[in-house]
Order: sequence, then C-alpha cells, then structure tokens
Amino acid sequence: MGDRSEYDAIVALLADYAHLIDEDRLEEWVELFCDDCTYKILSRENVEAGYPLELMSCNSKGMLRDRVVSLREANLYNLHTDKHILGAVRVHGADDGVWSVQANFSLYQSTLDGSTDLFAVGTYRDKVVFDNGRPLFAEKIVINDTFAVARMLSTPI
Amino acid sequence: MGDRSEYDAIVALLADYAHLIDEDRLEEWVELFCDDCTYKILSRENVEAGYPLELMSCNSKGMLRDRVVSLREANLYNLHTDKHILGAVRVHGADDGVWSVQANFSLYQSTLDGSTDLFAVGTYRDKVVFDNGRPLFAEKIVINDTFAVARMLSTPI
Amino acid sequence: MGDRSEYDAIVALLADYAHLIDEDRLEEWVELFCDDCTYKILSRENVEAGYPLELMSCNSKGMLRDRVVSLREANLYNLHTDKHILGAVRVHGADDGVWSVQANFSLYQSTLDGSTDLFAVGTYRDKVVFDNGRPLFAEKIVINDTFAVARMLSTPI
Repeated sequence: MGDRSEYDAIVALLADYAHLIDEDRLEEWVELFCDDCTYKILSRENVEAGYPLELMSCNSKGMLRDRVVSLREANLYNLHTDKHILGAVRVHGADDGVWSVQANFSLYQSTLDGSTDLFAVGTYRDKVVFDNGRPLFAEKIVINDTFAVARMLSTPI
Repeated sequence: MGDRSEYDAIVALLADYAHLIDEDRLEEWVELFCDDCTYKILSRENVEAGYPLELMSCNSKGMLRDRVVSLREANLYNLHTDKHILGAVRVHGADDGVWSVQANFSLYQSTLDGSTDLFAVGTYRDKVVFDNGRPLFAEKIVINDTFAVARMLSTPI
Repeated sequence: MGDRSEYDAIVALLADYAHLIDEDRLEEWVELFCDDCTYKILSRENVEAGYPLELMSCNSKGMLRDRVVSLREANLYNLHTDKHILGAVRVHGADDGVWSVQANFSLYQSTLDGSTDLFAVGTYRDKVVFDNGRPLFAEKIVINDTFAVARMLSTPI
C-alpha cells in the first residue's frame, strides 16, 4: 500500500475529483490533472474486447480545459446535478514515482425537479504523481459498466 | 487534512451515524450529537436558491431526542429498513477546534418483502468537535439532491 | 479502532474482496479466506427473526473452491458483470486476535448490452485474522436487505 501520508493524499484527490464535478466546479477540477495528462472514458465491453473506441479522450490538461469551456458555452450541462459515491480506494503501489490506483463509483443524476436516477457504475483506473507534494492525475481512465447511455458524452464522469 | 487520528475518528463518527440509523438504534444515534447541536435536512434546490425552507430542523440534542420518541410512538418508522452507502469522507480542516467535514451518501430503503429502491442521494456538510477525545456532531446538514420524496420527513437521513 | 496498520490492511482486504468478484477473478477471491472459514449469505429478515435459513453457506475454503469450480463449469455466471460499492468500513476491535468488522455495500449488475440495475444492498459482518501479517476472512456473513431476488444463489455477493 505504500506510505500512509501518500495513500491519504491519493484518497483525498479522488474524493476532490468527485465532489468538484458534483458541485459543477469544473475549472477547479481541471487543476487536479498534470499538464500532459491522459483522460479517457471507456466502456468495459470495449476494454475487454481490446477495442480502441473511446467515449471521450483528452491527451492534455489543455484539452480538458477546452472541453470545460465548451460545456460552459453550450450551457446544457447543468440540466441535471451529479452525485458520485466513491467506493474504497485501492492503491496498488508506486512505480518510479507513479502510483497505480483503482476505485469503483456509482453516479446518480438528479433532474431539476429533484428526482434521481442511477446514471452509471464503473471503475477508475488512475495514475497519480506528486508535484511538490501535491497529488495530480497523470492518467484517469473511467471504465463504465453502464454504456447504454446516450448522454454519456456531455460531462466528465 | 489535519491530524491522522482525528481524521480516523471523524470517519468513524460518520460511519456510526449511518449504521445506527440503518439498525434502527436511534436512541444511540442521538448520542453522537452535542447538546447544542444543529441538525437540518435541506434540499439542494433550496440551498442554491438561498431559501430558508427546511425539510427538518432541530436546534438541540433535546429536540432530536423528542423526535426519536415521536417516531417510536408513531410506530410507523419501521415499515422499511434503511441502508446508507457512505462515500469518501473529506475533512477540510479545523477552525478553532471545529472540524469541517463533507461526504456524499446514497440511501436505499427496503420494504418488508425485501425489495429495495433508491430513496435519496445527497451530501452531508458537518461540523465536528471533540469532547474529551470523543468526536460529536456540532452541526449536521443533510443536503438532498433527491427532494421529490413524500415520506422524507419521517426519519433521519 | 485498534492499530492503524491493521485497520488499513482490513480495509484493503474488504476492497480486494469486492474487486475480485467484480473482475471475475474468483480463484483469487477464494485465497482471501482461511482454510476453516465460514461464508454465509443471509437475509436480514431471517437474521432478525432468528431463522437459520441460509441463502448460501460454506464452512471451509475447500467448499468455496468447489463452488467456484461449479460456477466455471455451469458457465452461466458471466451473463452479467458485478459492481460493488463498499461503504465506510467499521473495525470494532480485536478479541484474541480476531477482528470484528462491518461494512455496507451496494451491488449493481450490468447486462452484456450495458444496462445496469441495482441487484442488492446489505451489510458485511466479518471476522478477520492475520496469518503472517496477511489479513484473511475467518468469517464472512453477507446480510442482504434485498432478498426478493431469484438469481441470488448463483454467485458470491
């Protein structure tokens, strides 16, 4: 599991990730990533079959920032609110300063009239690095068990 | 994140809170609060709009205790069982001995014939203090994303 | 709560348990148990009524291994994928080297076409021992709030 203080910092990073999306603080959410990060949303089906198809893919923090700007301009993202429930975080250890991390999530969306539905369940498979003691996502791979969802592309998961 | 042992104690407090409701041990649940606590259930809609409307509000441990007595007398509370899934707990730090804490939850209710439905998702925004080393809720604010729920007022969330 | 490093190891054990089922790595999952373990799936209704009826019961690691072999031969288990969300883990302390542990879970199942439904919610009540520093389940009791589920017997929960 590695060093305890790094473990705690990694868990806090994943919790921040979820809460910043839920609170629609996407500009702050971008700051959880490295400059040269990878962010992908995949379906479990495609991962297991070895297909390269990605539901969403960004290869830098700049691309993530652009996407947030697009979401703000489209102004459609806020027709629902998100709520992530993050399961136990598994820290598999570090290799040359890069930590491998995994956690399950469930994601609910509520409409403006306050009714809630399950939107997706899946697993995060992340790489985390420390920059001056601060944890950042070098890689965030979202693997959805639930992929029969039309609106999946609009916002981060 | 503050001191590790205090962090652990705060996480345990939130876990106890959820399990004592789930196990219908509400008399013990009351003992997790300070004498002069605040307990409120709000909807996210009202919080964001700045409305003061509260779905439930208690301003002291005595009021919470009275509510539990009422629930016992009404004898309606046990027509379902609750199950809380507590997400990652964020401890934002302490200010003058008062810890600010946040965590998401999902809450399921099962009927007596064993069918389960999502009841609510939301966020706890809590203030925790330590009394002789024991953590207690000075403030527990439950903010529901799901507020289109008629039976919401009957039991704590 | 006991010693921190043991607490961390117990939380990691419960997380491993959930992820190994979700990833269909049941042969590795069996290795999380002691040789003379107890594994039971019960319904909350029966626990509260004191009924001995068990939805599933294994009294040794050998029985668990046999069950996994049966599942592989039946080849029906993989018509869905599981996703466990593990709530906060409560470690109640150790008695003569045996740790009492409790955690809530929600379990979702996704079909091959990527639609997801809640399958069950419940509570784990576990006994954990350490063998040469490695945590193992001496007892794993799964208590389901959701018991009106026909397919419940096929795979571990």
